[in-house]
Amino acid sequence: MLYLVGLGLADETDITVKGLEIVKKAERVYLEAYTSILLVKKEKLESFYGRPVIEADRELVESGSDQILEDADKKDVAFLVVGDPFGATTHTDLVLRARELGIESKVVPNASIMSGIGCTGLQLYNFGQTVSMVFFTENWKPSSYYDRVKENIQLGLHTLVLVDIKVKEPSLEHLARGKIIYEPPRYMTVAQCASQMLETEEERKEGVYGPDSLAVGAARVGAADQKLVAGTLKELAEVDMGPPLHSLVLLGRKTHDLEKDYIREFAVDKATFDASWEKGYGATS
Amino acid sequence: MLYLVGLGLADETDITVKGLEIVKKAERVYLEAYTSILLVKKEKLESFYGRPVIEADRELVESGSDQILEDADKKDVAFLVVGDPFGATTHTDLVLRARELGIESKVVPNASIMSGIGCTGLQLYNFGQTVSMVFFTENWKPSSYYDRVKENIQLGLHTLVLVDIKVKEPSLEHLARGKIIYEPPRYMTVAQCASQMLETEEERKEGVYGPDSLAVGAARVGAADQKLVAGTLKELAEVDMGPPLHSLVLLGRKTHDLEKDYIREFAVDKATFDASWEKGYGATS
Repeated sequence: MLYLVGLGLADETDITVKGLEIVKKAERVYLEAYTSILLVKKEKLESFYGRPVIEADRELVESGSDQILEDADKKDVAFLVVGDPFGATTHTDLVLRARELGIESKVVPNASIMSGIGCTGLQLYNFGQTVSMVFFTENWKPSSYYDRVKENIQLGLHTLVLVDIKVKEPSLEHLARGKIIYEPPRYMTVAQCASQMLETEEERKEGVYGPDSLAVGAARVGAADQKLVAGTLKELAEVDMGPPLHSLVLLGRKTHDLEKDYIREFAVDKATFDASWEKGYGATS
Repeated sequence: MLYLVGLGLADETDITVKGLEIVKKAERVYLEAYTSILLVKKEKLESFYGRPVIEADRELVESGSDQILEDADKKDVAFLVVGDPFGATTHTDLVLRARELGIESKVVPNASIMSGIGCTGLQLYNFGQTVSMVFFTENWKPSSYYDRVKENIQLGLHTLVLVDIKVKEPSLEHLARGKIIYEPPRYMTVAQCASQMLETEEERKEGVYGPDSLAVGAARVGAADQKLVAGTLKELAEVDMGPPLHSLVLLGRKTHDLEKDYIREFAVDKATFDASWEKGYGATS
């Protein structure tokens, strides 16, 4: 049996009791460690589980899945995924490969950022499609996300923006010289995300949002030091929310008073928050 | 401290290790038992936690929240919510009341159906806004959900339809005679949901979807007997998916081949599935 076990969002104790039992008994345990991270190191997981854990990078999962699935028709293999196994990153391809090999699979769900973002007090019913924000470079500033945000905004809906992380990325400079050396990990912040959003708006000029549009930044959702900040995009582009992981929600105009009361508490500046709110939010339909 | 602890979706072992530690140590433990249910009884939770649990009905949570929050500035009170505390039902009002009373609160996230529905293999990025379906009566068939579905369909997005449950509803017939007697609990099925959706389409006639539109039914997500069925709305209107809880996803036309491969396995009839697919799905933008 292949078990896909969600680890939740913050630390080693966010695994479910059901998930932990499976991890303790499995023959081999893999940790998917390239699309998201827990806020604790692999060693801490191993000592909590009382067993070794094999780190699975992109190459192993995408090209070496048969190695992961070896003997899984007779033995139990656990594949651990930060968040939920079918959340922000879906591991359908691994399950499909297991199916082809006649291996059964089971999923142990857990909190995903796609629902955990509800901790902002914004109602999940009022969210449109989720988008991803990648690190812009000098020559590559993809803005297809902007079209999705536009669709959400036109319907008055919130948009969850998931931000880029780069873990174990080969250095292109070294690759060119025939060496594989990995770049240090990078995690996009709320400030970078807000600033890139404003950059896209300046380029596309479709008025989907602007410096005074309200958003909520969330850092380390589910952790003891979880942090929420509400403010305009201009304010969030300057905010320091501490260590990763970060996410951002751009508010839609259809916003309930309960949502306002909840997030106002986290406002960078209650005066600018109220001013922006008055201008464009609180529509009921 | 007020702890809002998510219980996940299926049984007593879906609580996280972090959540379980809080429940064991709290002074009082409430179980929100009217917006969703676990698939196990309260007694099973109590024996698993090794402590008593107080059932909190709608009246206690909405009118008696000060009773729940009593002494929570000095002692720990745990408020347990099926799924995630800020998932399909958000308990922002309780947290706001705690704030007013100067009581701190912390959330322990868990799987919500809003992300757990990813187990269908449909990508959460491709979902639009979520809608709710209530039990239609002879004279009351609210169709505002249809407008939301229309918005999603126009964008090519999937729609998660959360279905009604009625737990501890007073019998109107008895109320009229001055007695409070509760109706037996009722849980909407995938078949009822699909059939009500077709009824609305017949009335509104805007061609948002039809009998041949594809959908996925999900029952008991996260449980050992989790069941997924893919088919046309006409087929799903006839399907028996067993005990509660059920949910339905109406497919959008922007659908990835991986999603197709994943759900085709659960098709009621692979021939009608393929025929419907060919007609309207698989668009890339």
